[in-house]
Amino acid sequence: MYMQNSPSSPPTTAELILIGAGPGNPELLTVKAWRAIQNADAILYDHLVDKAVLDLAPAHCRRLYVGKKPYECCVSQDEIHALIALEAVRGGTIIRLKGGDPFIFGRGFEEVLAARQLGLKVTYIPGISSMQTAGLASIPLTHRAVSEGIWILTGTKKDGALAADLRLAMKSRSTVVIYMGMKKLGEIAAAYRGNGLGETPAAIIQHGSLPHQRMALGVAAALPAMAEEYRLTHPAIILIGEVVALQNAQKLDRSPYLYGVSTPNK
Amino acid sequence: MYMQNSPSSPPTTAELILIGAGPGNPELLTVKAWRAIQNADAILYDHLVDKAVLDLAPAHCRRLYVGKKPYECCVSQDEIHALIALEAVRGGTIIRLKGGDPFIFGRGFEEVLAARQLGLKVTYIPGISSMQTAGLASIPLTHRAVSEGIWILTGTKKDGALAADLRLAMKSRSTVVIYMGMKKLGEIAAAYRGNGLGETPAAIIQHGSLPHQRMALGVAAALPAMAEEYRLTHPAIILIGEVVALQNAQKLDRSPYLYGVSTPNK
Repeated sequence: MYMQNSPSSPPTTAELILIGAGPGNPELLTVKAWRAIQNADAILYDHLVDKAVLDLAPAHCRRLYVGKKPYECCVSQDEIHALIALEAVRGGTIIRLKGGDPFIFGRGFEEVLAARQLGLKVTYIPGISSMQTAGLASIPLTHRAVSEGIWILTGTKKDGALAADLRLAMKSRSTVVIYMGMKKLGEIAAAYRGNGLGETPAAIIQHGSLPHQRMALGVAAALPAMAEEYRLTHPAIILIGEVVALQNAQKLDRSPYLYGVSTPNK
Repeated sequence: MYMQNSPSSPPTTAELILIGAGPGNPELLTVKAWRAIQNADAILYDHLVDKAVLDLAPAHCRRLYVGKKPYECCVSQDEIHALIALEAVRGGTIIRLKGGDPFIFGRGFEEVLAARQLGLKVTYIPGISSMQTAGLASIPLTHRAVSEGIWILTGTKKDGALAADLRLAMKSRSTVVIYMGMKKLGEIAAAYRGNGLGETPAAIIQHGSLPHQRMALGVAAALPAMAEEYRLTHPAIILIGEVVALQNAQKLDRSPYLYGVSTPNK
């Protein structure tokens, strides 16, 4: 339902719905997100959101691209907040559609805070996060007696904390997942080699959930070589841990080790 | 489509689709899962899967409850594997519907291995994991400059590794999420107190995503008292980290600290 505010009315008839669009495949949206988009008056959407998802919205819906490509900046976070404020004045249902899950490295909560300042009602609908595309490549994130924890890190921190966190993670048997880490492959490989754990199974999954999903399998020390040999780049996740070696397992025994690149099973 | 095998045919016409049913609210299923269930010939479903989800399946579909309540055992993992084998002989599309995501502490990969041994085609459809219900309670899992990592642990390990992993996690600024930890609240509180971090913000969220979702907010040292006072028990997730204090924030400044129990905003 679209509600037009008169100039004097407060902007509180507008509502912000923050939606996780998932890893890319439109069918991995939740049913709740699918339905919400069908009632949108405005959609602010990210880079990598599929056109099929935008096509769910009604004809009158304003579709605003606010994508930030990794390591580039097209629309700043402040501009996104200003656009939310503008749409709030117009009223109706504003949907902010973000890749993955908005609260897992998505800066979604900054937009929640901006919307709260405007007095908007805010609703959140979670999305499948890109680490879950590991399962689409037959790698479980946990597996009993192999890895019983997951440590999710980002490569975008500039304070050197990635290497420090990796050194902690190596002391446990948790699976390590690194988002936005394709420019840190050398640092990651060095951290594992420096701890004598360079042979830990590792994978890079690019474009997870999409028809052009690709994966390279290898070991932590070989991550830079894997990316170079198979020309894997962003958007991708990096997985490190014994679960990676289960990828082709037929039973609980360890499978013969693989090094190669694959496209998804249909 | 249902396919009846003659006794002599191999069971390879059957297919297993392993589906994450999400945290409980049926609308948090993915569209892909929703569509797959509408074509199921058999569904093996867990405790806590909503009747509305089972009702999506066609009339002829066999609905088999294989729930394991936490800390109890109704149907063993071996029995589930045997049921998959039985359904494989019958043929058609077998759906294994598990709460949350099957590959995040879900033992889903054990069922994949069992199905591979039977020669079945296996497909995986990820689900929203219960840690994402933190966002439904207005707590982001990460937030720039507050927490830029997530460590997901389980309370079900019997080797004492939970406390050891917590001690590592405390050395980073990652958000800690503990699944199946409601019987380990004393151990968790002691680990934080022992490291002088008993005042770290902490939350317990029970029945996340459902109408009866409840949350207690407090600090790590108070986790046992919070559960007792508000009678929170399984199924619940435990969150520890500075992001918990953002729950009621209006801007990036820290909000006045809360201790209490809440039901979700509608």
